[in-house]
This record gives sequence, C-alpha cells and structure tokens, in this order.
Amino acid sequence: MPSRTLRRKSRRVASPAPIAILTDFGYRDHYVGAMKGVIAGIAPDAHVIDITHGIPPQSVVAGAMALQQSWRFFPKSTVFLVVVDPGVGSTRKAIAIETRAGARFVGPDNGVISLAASDAGISRIVELREVKYRLRSVSSTFHGRDIFAPAAAWLSMGTPLTALGPQVKDITHLSIPSATRRADSIKGEVIYIDGFGNLVTNIPRAMLDDLAASFRATPLLVRIETGATMEIFQAYADAPTGAPLAILGSFEFLEIAIRDGSAASLLRLSEGAPVRVIVST
Amino acid sequence: MPSRTLRRKSRRVASPAPIAILTDFGYRDHYVGAMKGVIAGIAPDAHVIDITHGIPPQSVVAGAMALQQSWRFFPKSTVFLVVVDPGVGSTRKAIAIETRAGARFVGPDNGVISLAASDAGISRIVELREVKYRLRSVSSTFHGRDIFAPAAAWLSMGTPLTALGPQVKDITHLSIPSATRRADSIKGEVIYIDGFGNLVTNIPRAMLDDLAASFRATPLLVRIETGATMEIFQAYADAPTGAPLAILGSFEFLEIAIRDGSAASLLRLSEGAPVRVIVST
Amino acid sequence: MPSRTLRRKSRRVASPAPIAILTDFGYRDHYVGAMKGVIAGIAPDAHVIDITHGIPPQSVVAGAMALQQSWRFFPKSTVFLVVVDPGVGSTRKAIAIETRAGARFVGPDNGVISLAASDAGISRIVELREVKYRLRSVSSTFHGRDIFAPAAAWLSMGTPLTALGPQVKDITHLSIPSATRRADSIKGEVIYIDGFGNLVTNIPRAMLDDLAASFRATPLLVRIETGATMEIFQAYADAPTGAPLAILGSFEFLEIAIRDGSAASLLRLSEGAPVRVIVST
Repeated sequence: MPSRTLRRKSRRVASPAPIAILTDFGYRDHYVGAMKGVIAGIAPDAHVIDITHGIPPQSVVAGAMALQQSWRFFPKSTVFLVVVDPGVGSTRKAIAIETRAGARFVGPDNGVISLAASDAGISRIVELREVKYRLRSVSSTFHGRDIFAPAAAWLSMGTPLTALGPQVKDITHLSIPSATRRADSIKGEVIYIDGFGNLVTNIPRAMLDDLAASFRATPLLVRIETGATMEIFQAYADAPTGAPLAILGSFEFLEIAIRDGSAASLLRLSEGAPVRVIVST
Repeated sequence: MPSRTLRRKSRRVASPAPIAILTDFGYRDHYVGAMKGVIAGIAPDAHVIDITHGIPPQSVVAGAMALQQSWRFFPKSTVFLVVVDPGVGSTRKAIAIETRAGARFVGPDNGVISLAASDAGISRIVELREVKYRLRSVSSTFHGRDIFAPAAAWLSMGTPLTALGPQVKDITHLSIPSATRRADSIKGEVIYIDGFGNLVTNIPRAMLDDLAASFRATPLLVRIETGATMEIFQAYADAPTGAPLAILGSFEFLEIAIRDGSAASLLRLSEGAPVRVIVST
Repeated sequence: MPSRTLRRKSRRVASPAPIAILTDFGYRDHYVGAMKGVIAGIAPDAHVIDITHGIPPQSVVAGAMALQQSWRFFPKSTVFLVVVDPGVGSTRKAIAIETRAGARFVGPDNGVISLAASDAGISRIVELREVKYRLRSVSSTFHGRDIFAPAAAWLSMGTPLTALGPQVKDITHLSIPSATRRADSIKGEVIYIDGFGNLVTNIPRAMLDDLAASFRATPLLVRIETGATMEIFQAYADAPTGAPLAILGSFEFLEIAIRDGSAASLLRLSEGAPVRVIVST
C-alpha cells in the first residue's frame, strides 16, 4: 500500500468521489471483499457502490454492455472500477480514462470499458504503471485488487489521472453488431440476456419509431427464427401470463420477454439469435 | 433528474435517513446498480443498505414476507425501497407510505409492502405522481430506477411525503394464510423457503406456547404429509446431522430444517405444504 | 437493543471503525439485511463492507480460508463480523478477539475465525455474554443478528472488548492440511474451489521457490490424479484457451485453472484431491 505521506495528503480532499464497481467475480468468494478492503484503506470515506459482480465469467461483452447501460445514472464524478479481465497478467494494458461527461473509468484495456467511455467522451487515457499507486506486491492473477482498486481509490481521493502513469493514445474498442434498417423491416439480434431471462436486442427505439412512422397505419410485429411472432407491448403486464411479448426495455432497446417467465429458457434463444421487426400485413 | 434548485435545497438537511433496498432483480445484471446510481445523485450521503435482491422473480409474497421479517431491525427513520413489480407499466399504482413506527415504504401497490407497512401502522399513503421527483424520462419497464429510487432518495433527504403526489386512501393487501388452532393440534402450512432450504411455516410461537400450556406433560410433535414426525428442538445442533427437526426460527415462526442440510430438497416440500403440530400420545 | 444512554455515549466517538462481514447466508433471504439493520441502529456511520455471503452453507473451513485470505487487505482497525455457524444455539461459544495487528474478529468459536485471527496475532479473547450488548431478545437460530452484529457494531463505536463479556483463554483451532516437501517433489491437495472453478491448493509459493531453487535447470510440473500434467504459467492468458494450467494464485498458493473455463467441472476435482509438484525429467 502507498506510503503514509501519500495517504495523508489525499485525505485533505473535501469529499471523495463515489466508486462504482462492476466485475465478473461472482458472489461466492472473497475477491470483491479484498478489493473493497484495499479501497477502504486508501479512501475510507468514499461511497462504494456495487453495480454488479454477476457478469458471466470472462464475458467482456456482457460487462461492457452492463456498464454502458448503467454509468449515466451515477453522479458525474463517479469513478467506475471495472474488472472483467480474462487476460490478467498478460500484455493487455491496465488503464484509466477521463471523459468529457466527468465519469472516470479504471480497468483492463480489453474493451470492457470502451462502450461506456466512448459514450461519455474519452478525453484522456493513461496506463496504470506508477508503482506508488499500486499495492506494494502485485500478483499476476488479481490486478483488480492490486492495481485497479488502488487506482480507483486514489482517483476518488483527488489524485490526478496523469499521476497514475504515462498517457496512451487509444484503447481497445469492442464492436457490438448493429441492427440494420431495411425498407419494410429491421434486422437485429439478441445481444444480452438478463437475469430474468429477458432477451435484449440491438434494435434501438429510434429505429423502431422510424419504421413505424413510415407505415403509420400498420402495427409492427417482432419475429424470431423459431417462428413465433409477437406484438410490441407497452408493459409486461399487458401481455397474457406465459405469452412471449416484445417491449421497449428500460435501456431503450427492443426486448423479448415472457410475462412472469423466462424468455431465454422458454424460447431457447441465446446471444446472437436473429430478431426481425416486420410490418403487419 | 430533478432540477439543481431542488437538489441544493434538500442537501441542507443534516443527516439523510438510511435507505434499505429489497428487490427481485437478482445479482447478475446492472439493474440494482442503476438504482443506486440514481440514489447517489440525489442523496449522496445516505447510507444505502441491501436487504436482499434475491427474492424469487415476481414473487410478491416472498418479497412481502422478507420485508415483514426484517424491517423492524432497522433504524426507525429508514426508508424502505421495495421493488418486486411484475405489473410495472400497468395500472398498478406507485406508492409511498408513512407509518406510526417511523419507517417509510416506497414501492408498487401490489401488496409487497402491505405486510410490513400494516405491522408498522400505516398513517399516510401517497401515489408517486409528482414528476419533479421522478427521473426526467420514465420507462415502462423499470420504475425501480425511474420512480421508486428517486422517491426513496428524496424522502431520505427530508422531502415531505405529501410532496410526492396525491394522498390515497388504502393499499392493496396481501393475505397470507393463517395457522388454525384446534383442541389438541395446530394446522398450518409452509409459507416461505429460505436459501438454506429451511421451511418456514405460518405457525407462530404464541400458538405453540398456548398448545403446550394446555398439555403440560406431553411434548409437542410436528408432522408433515409424507409421514415424518419431528420433535421441536432448541437449536439446529441438538438434532443429529441429516435428521429433520422442527425449531422456532429467528422470526418467531415454526420452521422445519435438516441439520447441515436442505429440508426443502430432502423432504421435497414446497410453499403450501401442510404442517401439523400434534400432542405426543 | 441496548438502552438509549448506552447509545448516546458511544456516538461521541470520532469515527467508527469499518465493519467487514463474511457469512454463509447467501443472497436469497433477508438475513444479511436484518444484521445490517441492527448495525445501522447502533453504529449508523460505520462503513459496512461485504466480504462475501456466498460461503457454501455451513462450510466452516471455506469461511475460515476466505477470511484468512482477505482480512489483511482491510484497514487495520476493521471489525470482522463472521457468521458461518452450524452450531448456533448449541454450547459453542460466541466470541470476540483482539489482535496485535489491530483487526478484531467477532463470530462463533468453531474455528471459522481461527486462521485469520492466528495470523493477526491473538492478544485477547472474550465470550459475548454481556446482555446489554445483545439484542433484547435472542433467538436460538440467528445469533448473527442478535449477538454478533450488535457486538461488532459496539466494537466499531469504541466499546472496549472486555465490556462484551468475560475473558477466555483459547479458541477452537482449525487444522488445514499442510503440503509436504520431499526431495524432488511436493505433495499437496486442493483446499478451496472458487467461483470461477479454480482449484486452490495448499502449496505455498515459498515451497515452490525452494524446490525450483534445488533443480535450477529443470522446470516444475504439476500433476493431478487423473493423470494430467501441467506447466506452471505466469498468467491465465499464457495458456491456450480450454487447457488446464497451474499458476501462483492471488493469495500466494498454487492453483489449477483452465483458461476461460472451470477447472473444477472440467477436471472433476473437489476439495481434498491430491496435487503433486514434480521436477520435469
């Protein structure tokens, strides 16, 4: 842990920024606890907020999407500590990012913070190489505890981003497949399955609204490969129990759900499954 | 999010009330995180305490019971944010409640807060319709984030209940089946199964004590439909490992458990299974 | 709950110590929430940090190891509240411990705090018998809420350890099997399986370094009973995806892992499985 002098200096800062954590560590082990212990040693008064630790193991894409869908609901100054890190100990960089929106992001440079950081407007990137802002001993398997948690805690305390290491030009970007608009339909796919079994697609509200505007009189229908065709409802509760429905979900993408049930298990769909929006004829 | 002016005013309050959260959102997704982000933006210094997010999906009854069994262990001024909301986006009301015990409850009007709120003594109910205490844009699938979390945060900051919307006369009440006392027995049922597989019944301590008092010399036995008859033990550890036992659980109801095992899976019982207490003959 | 007078006195303390909680209560029920409610009533400003609540039910050994591997990452003054308590309500003692490292531990005397407390240097032990530092009514099944949580909260507020009850000479110690060094090999076993399915052995880094030093030119190999032999890698990402590998894990013990997979399920190994380190020939 950093020296006493460093610590005392940082504590002068009026009010530490909140730290929001998102990992794939799960809830069985003490790994999240160890990270929080490290944070408490550096930034004892910071509010530490769990986004989730239930990202499926090593799922960089799921982590990136969960972060992209949640970061904007936090206070502007929040430091996001993001650890979905299958390449820990390899040559992938450990980075921290400042954004024009105010949010800061700390994590591995494998794309997991790229969607959110791009949305927030990346203004500066550093590689976390300054040893005095890491734990004294750094393992090769747990940078969350040894590198990322200390960096997030120091940022929360007011340490400038540039103190954490040399600037870097760019980060690794993830590409999430986009839905495509055709004359009388939209072609998309399932990109995230949530814990309720709701199937989140990559079809945004704007594209739906646009298609609907072109065919004013006819309602839109949603079709999946197994043949089922669904109406778009305004609320889960508008559909009969057990029936599949399409809905604009809480993050402004089209979702397929089953009222009081799991669409993922009942429709046997997984990430990548094609979803089409068509005009009723 | 509410305007700057609103925000600044609320921050004058000395010390925000704690906010305790209970949902069925699970631990896989970022949904709880998004709610906490919203709270941190409105009430940055409020202590936010997770009761659980593991209520089985859409189980209003399980949520109501978990809340009923835990609210009284919290500080009096606690604001309970309760989101088990299968009817989100439908016509079910979004409400907040003040109680004579001091606790406040925020959630959907589907019964999930009714057991706890009734125990605490409902003194005032409002419907959450005032738009300035909601997020600016309200989805039809995630009122936890868009309506309930902001309401709880504003209450924590000192906003009066009546500012949140018009008063309402009554709430939706759940009815949990009651155990019935007979001359020489009690007839009840399993109403909750916990994560250890313990089977919590609706037979309260007082009813057991009363029956025991009538038959002073003879011990009581507990019988389930599959035929097993169990003694009532004082501690899990008093029973042999692997044997079913009955015990007065931590919430003052009779429970059926298996030492170092899961009664639910070993006895194959679920909610609604009849349980009888008889006098040993 | 203790009397108002007690409460007011304790609140004079400048800054309460952090409280870190580790239990086997899981994430389904309200049990952890009830404990946190009790803490919030006694020590409203204490930072409460979850280590994990996912210890496998009644697994005293797993709880002891998770605590041993995490406590040292927390601030020195942290109060650890540890509840893995299959003997609740029996004659096992409820205890609190002060250590030379500063950490304090509260929990059942069944060995679950013994590994960490021994590492921290036990300096004083008390049995939690003083009724004014318990909840008013103590159940026989939930001492976590009724005895341990209040004790931890009062310690956090500055209550001296000796106020909680009479001193005790010793605690129950767990014995974790040690790895044994032979002339040209090490014999150990799997002692913990984490949520990623990584198999943590009892073979410490020092023993490996020592063996490696004796056979400088030849690399070490790790062998499990099913015949697989693995190299020791520096990072998960150095091994091919899907291949078993050995690695020095984040807590300085040899682990067996599978890159982007679960070693526990793919190799079908569980706690106690023998693991040998041999010299490549």
